[in-house]
Amino acid sequence: MHAGPSPFLAACRSEPVERVPVWFMRQAGRSLPEYRALRGDGSILDAIRHPELAAEITLQPVRRYGVDAAILFSDIVVPVAALGVGVDVVPGRGPVVPEPFRSASDLGRLRPLEPELDTPYVLETVRILSRELDVPLIGFAGAPFTVASYLVEGGPSRDFARTKALMHTEPALWASLVGKLADVALASLRSQVSAGASAVQLFDSWAGSLTRGEYSRFALPATRQILDGLTDLGVPRILFGVGTGEILDLMAPPGVDVVGVDWRVPLGAARARVGPRPALQGNLDPAICLAGFDAAAVEARRVLEEAGGRPGHVFNLGHGVLPGTDPDVLARIVELVHDEGRTAAAGAGIGS
Amino acid sequence: MHAGPSPFLAACRSEPVERVPVWFMRQAGRSLPEYRALRGDGSILDAIRHPELAAEITLQPVRRYGVDAAILFSDIVVPVAALGVGVDVVPGRGPVVPEPFRSASDLGRLRPLEPELDTPYVLETVRILSRELDVPLIGFAGAPFTVASYLVEGGPSRDFARTKALMHTEPALWASLVGKLADVALASLRSQVSAGASAVQLFDSWAGSLTRGEYSRFALPATRQILDGLTDLGVPRILFGVGTGEILDLMAPPGVDVVGVDWRVPLGAARARVGPRPALQGNLDPAICLAGFDAAAVEARRVLEEAGGRPGHVFNLGHGVLPGTDPDVLARIVELVHDEGRTAAAGAGIGS
Repeated sequence: MHAGPSPFLAACRSEPVERVPVWFMRQAGRSLPEYRALRGDGSILDAIRHPELAAEITLQPVRRYGVDAAILFSDIVVPVAALGVGVDVVPGRGPVVPEPFRSASDLGRLRPLEPELDTPYVLETVRILSRELDVPLIGFAGAPFTVASYLVEGGPSRDFARTKALMHTEPALWASLVGKLADVALASLRSQVSAGASAVQLFDSWAGSLTRGEYSRFALPATRQILDGLTDLGVPRILFGVGTGEILDLMAPPGVDVVGVDWRVPLGAARARVGPRPALQGNLDPAICLAGFDAAAVEARRVLEEAGGRPGHVFNLGHGVLPGTDPDVLARIVELVHDEGRTAAAGAGIGS
Repeated sequence: MHAGPSPFLAACRSEPVERVPVWFMRQAGRSLPEYRALRGDGSILDAIRHPELAAEITLQPVRRYGVDAAILFSDIVVPVAALGVGVDVVPGRGPVVPEPFRSASDLGRLRPLEPELDTPYVLETVRILSRELDVPLIGFAGAPFTVASYLVEGGPSRDFARTKALMHTEPALWASLVGKLADVALASLRSQVSAGASAVQLFDSWAGSLTRGEYSRFALPATRQILDGLTDLGVPRILFGVGTGEILDLMAPPGVDVVGVDWRVPLGAARARVGPRPALQGNLDPAICLAGFDAAAVEARRVLEEAGGRPGHVFNLGHGVLPGTDPDVLARIVELVHDEGRTAAAGAGIGS
């Protein structure tokens, strides 16, 4: 149950807000001592399968930081893991697929997701949270290109050479793969919204490794399939990736309500690229938070200034919270944004 | 000794050329079987210390590919390694500094480079090559930010959090560090040119991780110190980094003759950002070369098309040759560029 109208949801819809809303990607987990105490050393995929635990981890940063939205404690590979694809998340490394996807026969390893049967724990977590939270819950999924890159490479990659080779040399197979992954992501997101999520974020984290032509031809169509399939639900849809400066305009089709922007692109430049419509989310460099509050505050104020006090800004990092981040720095950034982040229609500008 | 005027040097000076010149970053080494046969399993730093071996490795890709320039077989950490900083290059990982730079006292580990005494093997390699090559030799150095990032992080990094923390929290110490590294790089490059190098490339490979403000304040001044210190030598100066789309305009001050562009930024967009003066180098995605010649050829033709047939284009990859690249694909790309790459003043446009 929400305590009054949500500035986060209003900002996602580019409506004026009293104060700029803020949340942090990866706010749930990693840098919080109460998270490490709770979770211990087990696999993150195990923790996600325990709704009470996953709900508590989701709540921790909301309590600690006073952020304007919660993001479900989960992982982008949870749905494909539930389908039995064979994937684990290795601490310090990321998703690993011991038997990578290499040919048409691997498509058989993906079937349609039935969320209530395949990932009941995710939905139970969402239901618990929709009772306990007084801020909106963001559900999420991995975008087809980024999830496919793990399946094809067998793990995290610097260059995505096998993935790019597959899309260029076997475009029909690639289209089938990302089409199936789009169906999985859409089913997962729809079920999360049905269970109580108020917004969704699609993580196309590595889309910035693609050329504009590759993104248009090989990544965007399956991503749009998901976005368009959510329209009737009426929840804000956020699309995010890092290093996406050159494709930011392509990442703002009608189905996108909010575009995530990494720290490289000043928000004013991002606005010029995406046009007047979608809201922008970002874009403090997560690395600056490790330099202490004073340095982070200078950069956070610059982000607010570059957002220009226009409606349609959700303050966030430009990528996820880094391990080793001092939680107090994040707490003080939230205070700063709440104190100083104003939109033109509701106040007299930045820092007034 | 060069056989006639060099299209590479002419293109670096934005002069019209009969055919677009081409070379590949990391062409020396990695993917060539004759390189692996020659080098065996030793440290790359050992191989670099043997002039006959380093010269032969530099020559191999010129023979095999018919590229228009050679690049010295060396590494950006060679000068600081020669100063006794304590750095090794670990295969598959990169430069590793077991005792990272963390405070002012570490500055004492850097003294001025005396190239003839500290890196005589580099100069001997250059001298051998200037006798044997019939294309220009490119000397190179690491730009201060990128070299400093290895010294401060202790190795390759994804987020450069310690480096960014240092620049923001101890700007005077940071300025001293990159100032010393600029002196080292300048001394090394001047000595390479004296020994016979005809052009130089400054690798600021990771500059794209910085915001515009960070690049302007913390990276560019020391880089300009090097570039300006080379002016009297009259050799083309190339400045390169990946993920630099947002700072490309800042990377084109008067001291830069050629700006390297990664595969994310179409060359037409790059030209609009840097203005009419510097030449552009790039920008085929190295990953596409692993998809086979047909896919790579489509992209290579797109690169030529985006260069627009204007003078001032040096064809290259957007980053270094990846391990596992089929040398025949690179050889055929060179043929394609030579056959189809024309500049307007010398021919009737692309693909004519």
